[in-house]
Amino acid sequence: MRLALFDKGRLGIVDGDTITDVTDQVAPLSAGPAGALQQYIEAVTGGSVPELDAARGRRVPLAEVTLEAPLPRPGKIIGAPVNYLDHKAEMDYPTSIADLGVFLKANSSVIGPDQDVVLPYSDIRTDQEGELAVVIGRTAAQVSADDALDHVFGYTCLLDITVRSGEDRSTRKSFDTFTPLGPWIVTADEIADPDRLELRCDVAGENRQNTNTGYLIFGVRELVAYASSVMTLHPGDVIATGTPAGVGPLSDGDRVVVEIERIGRLEVGVDGSRATPYESRPGHRRG
Amino acid sequence: MRLALFDKGRLGIVDGDTITDVTDQVAPLSAGPAGALQQYIEAVTGGSVPELDAARGRRVPLAEVTLEAPLPRPGKIIGAPVNYLDHKAEMDYPTSIADLGVFLKANSSVIGPDQDVVLPYSDIRTDQEGELAVVIGRTAAQVSADDALDHVFGYTCLLDITVRSGEDRSTRKSFDTFTPLGPWIVTADEIADPDRLELRCDVAGENRQNTNTGYLIFGVRELVAYASSVMTLHPGDVIATGTPAGVGPLSDGDRVVVEIERIGRLEVGVDGSRATPYESRPGHRRG
Repeated sequence: MRLALFDKGRLGIVDGDTITDVTDQVAPLSAGPAGALQQYIEAVTGGSVPELDAARGRRVPLAEVTLEAPLPRPGKIIGAPVNYLDHKAEMDYPTSIADLGVFLKANSSVIGPDQDVVLPYSDIRTDQEGELAVVIGRTAAQVSADDALDHVFGYTCLLDITVRSGEDRSTRKSFDTFTPLGPWIVTADEIADPDRLELRCDVAGENRQNTNTGYLIFGVRELVAYASSVMTLHPGDVIATGTPAGVGPLSDGDRVVVEIERIGRLEVGVDGSRATPYESRPGHRRG
Repeated sequence: MRLALFDKGRLGIVDGDTITDVTDQVAPLSAGPAGALQQYIEAVTGGSVPELDAARGRRVPLAEVTLEAPLPRPGKIIGAPVNYLDHKAEMDYPTSIADLGVFLKANSSVIGPDQDVVLPYSDIRTDQEGELAVVIGRTAAQVSADDALDHVFGYTCLLDITVRSGEDRSTRKSFDTFTPLGPWIVTADEIADPDRLELRCDVAGENRQNTNTGYLIFGVRELVAYASSVMTLHPGDVIATGTPAGVGPLSDGDRVVVEIERIGRLEVGVDGSRATPYESRPGHRRG
């Protein structure tokens, strides 16, 4: 099942080129900033609402709706810093996740399909990083790699937008608009093996990243297990699994596309019109 | 006004040694994992519920209730890495926040008064860091230091528990139980100047940290302004303002107390009984 948010928070099931509006089936839940899909994930994994029924709902052509980020404000967005061998070589890191740890991105950084990544700086690189994202279903604490997939609700595409400056990763990766997510969540039952998916990322019509999740250093199972050994994972938490080689700078007007086999294609724009010099950032020269 | 959660999510106003139960005044809001105080902050800053009325509510002796973390799962927990001059010298950092950026802690790491910090490692230091925490009221994006306090809902005490290993700060600071918060939120109208508050932190009966928030490098106004220049701050987001000199290791059975003038006294325990060797952590030697 492909679950999407659309048209100001409505919940839909995508099937080919149509979407079925099932918002009413999660009522009387009120959405709030976390959105109807977050509430559905919490409720269905908690057993308090039935599965969604695509047969009961209004069908609309997908082209007639505006898709939104499926989770506009997740509880946590966890990232894996260096999790493909080729990107590890590219960034010259000597160690892997058990030494580097996972990082966190602000949940306020999420945007949806066709929105714009806003570049903060006119003179510092802001790069695209195309990634497979895991959405947690059942609460996970100290789970083993063998049990990890039982705690996964589904998968989606994610861009981990990153400024190449010197601050903490959480700052460099958390500017508003820095986590494009979508176009929908594909439920876990449709992805037999998340560690065997083709992934590509194009910028301005040119391919930059092209890999298979089979090249992940920590596969999805190991990554969920590691993250859950540090922090309890709750329904709707998102884990970005890491990016392969080919990160590079974004420019005003670029279109960025990340496409993952069996999951979907997420496209966003780039707005550089508000970028300012790094030296003019708030607080600089204060310390 | 001192707002607290108690007895499994009830909302109360603390006055001296009594607490008035005002849970019914925020109904029909249903709490969820973020809790009733989070919902109250969102609703009252959005203008959709009236101010709480301490005259209408059941008064109970404070000693008869169990206080809980006022925000059990905040939207964001933002930290300031090196924000007192003496701790900056202690940690040998050459730069300040505009260069280091802010970091993020997982919202799953929050515990309340009298709960236990659980030490993950038997052979790596886990330190206490006592801090003033700012709770955001009105949404803040790109606000100036002059306007910053208009976006603050209130203040509370926070312990930023930190493992001294090599991983990303988000990992070292996000283990479950690593963000004791409370004992309540004091609303901003009661704190004329957050940059002039005595703060002390004791461990096992000995004083380790003793400062005044006047020694903050980035004061509360500047820190809110800086954080809001990177990421939009939402109602209920928490900013830990940084820790002074005197961080040190915690041991099984320790009691940790952080006390801030005009705000309150937060005390938690330390449980080292589940600590394991660092070498045995999941994923080690995989990369």
